[in-house]
Amino acid sequence: MSSPQCAVIMGGLLEQLLGDPFTVMNAVGLIAFALVGATKAIRERFDIFGVTVVGLATAFAGGATRDILVDRVPLALRSLGEVSLGVFGVALAIGLSMALESPDDHPFTVVADAVGLAAFTTAGAIVAADSGLPGFGVVVIATINAVGGGAIADILLDRTPFIMIDDFYASCAVLGGTTYWLLDTAGIGGGAAALCATVTVGTRLAAV
Amino acid sequence: MSSPQCAVIMGGLLEQLLGDPFTVMNAVGLIAFALVGATKAIRERFDIFGVTVVGLATAFAGGATRDILVDRVPLALRSLGEVSLGVFGVALAIGLSMALESPDDHPFTVVADAVGLAAFTTAGAIVAADSGLPGFGVVVIATINAVGGGAIADILLDRTPFIMIDDFYASCAVLGGTTYWLLDTAGIGGGAAALCATVTVGTRLAAV
Amino acid sequence: MSSPQCAVIMGGLLEQLLGDPFTVMNAVGLIAFALVGATKAIRERFDIFGVTVVGLATAFAGGATRDILVDRVPLALRSLGEVSLGVFGVALAIGLSMALESPDDHPFTVVADAVGLAAFTTAGAIVAADSGLPGFGVVVIATINAVGGGAIADILLDRTPFIMIDDFYASCAVLGGTTYWLLDTAGIGGGAAALCATVTVGTRLAAV
Repeated sequence: MSSPQCAVIMGGLLEQLLGDPFTVMNAVGLIAFALVGATKAIRERFDIFGVTVVGLATAFAGGATRDILVDRVPLALRSLGEVSLGVFGVALAIGLSMALESPDDHPFTVVADAVGLAAFTTAGAIVAADSGLPGFGVVVIATINAVGGGAIADILLDRTPFIMIDDFYASCAVLGGTTYWLLDTAGIGGGAAALCATVTVGTRLAAV
Repeated sequence: MSSPQCAVIMGGLLEQLLGDPFTVMNAVGLIAFALVGATKAIRERFDIFGVTVVGLATAFAGGATRDILVDRVPLALRSLGEVSLGVFGVALAIGLSMALESPDDHPFTVVADAVGLAAFTTAGAIVAADSGLPGFGVVVIATINAVGGGAIADILLDRTPFIMIDDFYASCAVLGGTTYWLLDTAGIGGGAAALCATVTVGTRLAAV
Repeated sequence: MSSPQCAVIMGGLLEQLLGDPFTVMNAVGLIAFALVGATKAIRERFDIFGVTVVGLATAFAGGATRDILVDRVPLALRSLGEVSLGVFGVALAIGLSMALESPDDHPFTVVADAVGLAAFTTAGAIVAADSGLPGFGVVVIATINAVGGGAIADILLDRTPFIMIDDFYASCAVLGGTTYWLLDTAGIGGGAAALCATVTVGTRLAAV
């Protein structure tokens, strides 16, 4: 299956689940990023406590920054649902690390990271647009929501943050956030979330 | 005097002062952490301006982060009382540095740090619980309130943050915060603050 | 033209524009810091995307931190005017880099940085005083507003933050903020902004 096909299918899947796009996108992002963060920590031979902390920090960092910027208490501190989804992603990573050889490089993890990036870009764009921010604010908050987790994971793992080096990581989120804002401004609210996610995951998977 | 005894006495002392547990715990934490931060800066031969800045930053960093997370203006910026207590802690450190040989390693400083950790864990747990956050939020905010100051001090002094290396520093705050939340949820609001402080200072002093 | 003369003239110019001192000071600061940040990035041979990001981050970082501390959504995310002024400063830097030999060391850039420092000190002091904060809060927020941009620029450019090494950078902002607070408390609201800016830019230009 080629990358663009994959992107369209994922966008479609997410779209079906919609109704409340923020909840869906946020849940997908939390599980995906907790999985990716925990997988990286497992590779660095952290103990179970460290793996959980890195996984949850990767899942929550972007959204918490988003919530501080739009002036509200971070959702992760208010909602036990967020914590449960994060823990589920960490458990998934531990399961995978037993089943797979090198889960860190596995296509599954790469796709999960791209899906998380897309889901959080969309979740961030929705929150920012609902807060009444203009285009610049929507794109900035979508991007921070999307790349915050990866940046924190790399800092905790003492690596150079790859979002700084990888040309097509933050840019995919900027592109997705801009797409959301354009559609939302044009009054096409319904498809905005799905297309934002599709554009982000599509450009990211095309790049890796 | 053994460490557990010491912990019980301190918990008892703090308890007596209660009535308004947040104010007492917060005041104890501010003085203790300003003292510890300033003592570290004195050892690194900072000038009086640098010692004051490091001391106040150590005292205020955790609480300011807590306040931003629960969506209010940091108390340290709003209340002159906070500043006065911080300055008092710095003055205490300067006085001690004249009286003692190596105040940085002195048992007094070690105990002050453990007391500050316990007091700020309790202050953070109280604020978070009063904001209506669930268990996870209470424990996270209690821990951030407690370890934020030490992390900032080490960054300003260009050391590796010891909260990352020392296994029984942040863990003591997590334990204390969990204790507070359990008692508070069980409706035993009265003793929650005292027991949270006792558990934190006790486990910390047992570890060092 | 000597530095003190220069400071007086600038303070006077800014004063004339007043009426709404926050808007004027904030606009001057945004253009000046976007220019300074972008000029540094040009010298490090960043591409146009990198130059824009560093310029905007330098212009927005201090004010965004100020807004988070006084518990509101950062102005840069809410107002397209802020973004336009930042982009204008970046464009100015690109133009200058074509006209001048080494714009990074050029007196024009040094003066622009001092003017930005003074303008943001004043903008921060106004916001903090209007939020009803006491003296300590006013001085801290004025200083953070003023030095936040330079600190971020140096981190993004992987230099040691010069605000840590340069004795007369943050101190100028502390002095300016204190001046504002004293005049504002004394009821001399009218001239407070102009004098705060004059004191800051004057001490800074006297130091370089």
